Amino acid sequence: MNEQLYSSGLLENAVNEFSKLPGIGKKTALRLALHLLKQEVAAVRQFGEAVIQLRNEAMYCKQCMNLSDSEICEICSNPRRDHSMICVVESIRDVMSVENTMQYHGVYHVLGGMISPMDGVGPSDLTIEELENRVRAGNISEIILALSATMEGDTTNFYIYRKLKDLPVKISTLARGVSIGDELEYADQVTLGRSIVNRQPFENIFNRNG
Amino acid sequence: MNEQLYSSGLLENAVNEFSKLPGIGKKTALRLALHLLKQEVAAVRQFGEAVIQLRNEAMYCKQCMNLSDSEICEICSNPRRDHSMICVVESIRDVMSVENTMQYHGVYHVLGGMISPMDGVGPSDLTIEELENRVRAGNISEIILALSATMEGDTTNFYIYRKLKDLPVKISTLARGVSIGDELEYADQVTLGRSIVNRQPFENIFNRNG
Repeated sequence: MNEQLYSSGLLENAVNEFSKLPGIGKKTALRLALHLLKQEVAAVRQFGEAVIQLRNEAMYCKQCMNLSDSEICEICSNPRRDHSMICVVESIRDVMSVENTMQYHGVYHVLGGMISPMDGVGPSDLTIEELENRVRAGNISEIILALSATMEGDTTNFYIYRKLKDLPVKISTLARGVSIGDELEYADQVTLGRSIVNRQPFENIFNRNG
Repeated sequence: MNEQLYSSGLLENAVNEFSKLPGIGKKTALRLALHLLKQEVAAVRQFGEAVIQLRNEAMYCKQCMNLSDSEICEICSNPRRDHSMICVVESIRDVMSVENTMQYHGVYHVLGGMISPMDGVGPSDLTIEELENRVRAGNISEIILALSATMEGDTTNFYIYRKLKDLPVKISTLARGVSIGDELEYADQVTLGRSIVNRQPFENIFNRNG
């Protein structure tokens, strides 16, 4: 599509704004803008204000750096969570992924990225010092490193491990292995190799599902 | 994905608003909201306000019903356009499609839909009466019916034709035929049949391209 001719500057403006969003091109942006034109004035105002309010008012939890509506997030201020266990994740999104499993009841620490010299991200750009301070403050029994199984994830894992290994805290990482539902012939060699080396007693799996 | 757990009510609210848009599910909505969180406050405000402003301030041209920033749109108020020729289209979007061809220099009439008894849309729901009034007011030499080549388009074309056929105006419709770039073996029978019946002298095409 060449340069689009708009009959309305307001429409052009809204389309340009929509098309700044990731994964939204000019055609989709136009579709969204024309959709909103057909909605109630109040509904469109609600949409626009929700977005502005999110950016203006959302803050990051002072303890775990997760997105929050208050200084301490709902997870950190929940007395029913296990505060001696910290799950270290890259982003807010990963907190959601772990929460959705319903298998974790500790608290979190959001790093805000992963060490990646190629992208100019070093340890000081992340919240690793804050993590160390939390562990040094005591009452932490286990750190679970829940980072992606990529080069950056492994580098970050290793850096954090070296920082914390002399402190009285157990450090674990996510189990790597064949995904549930995966056919063995399509699993990559490294994953399959690791899952053989780290094989588990059959009863473990049996007990967990029972 | 099951019911998502959000650490922030503001985030949940923004995600819900985004996911009301057509073609945007919860996952995309979350991606968009997290993207906006990383943008400048001013940029997010600009986005939200552009959308609200579009809905609040955009109006429809009193003459052609096209979207406009003022009572009479830029096309209708442009003295260099041919005001004796009206191209009848279904929607604002079709005005853009025709404008993008750069082949039309007349004015438009936006119907606001097509006759579709199945969807409960009758002639009185469209701006057909306004079109008739424009033609009756005089100074119109040609009406080009540029509606989709569907059942609804044909019905609407025929209805408008019957309304206007006794008035002193030439009525034409878009040429139907094999799309440029289409391979003949994949063209449907009806289109191919019509394009044989309405075949054109070779010089016409030669002259147009020259």
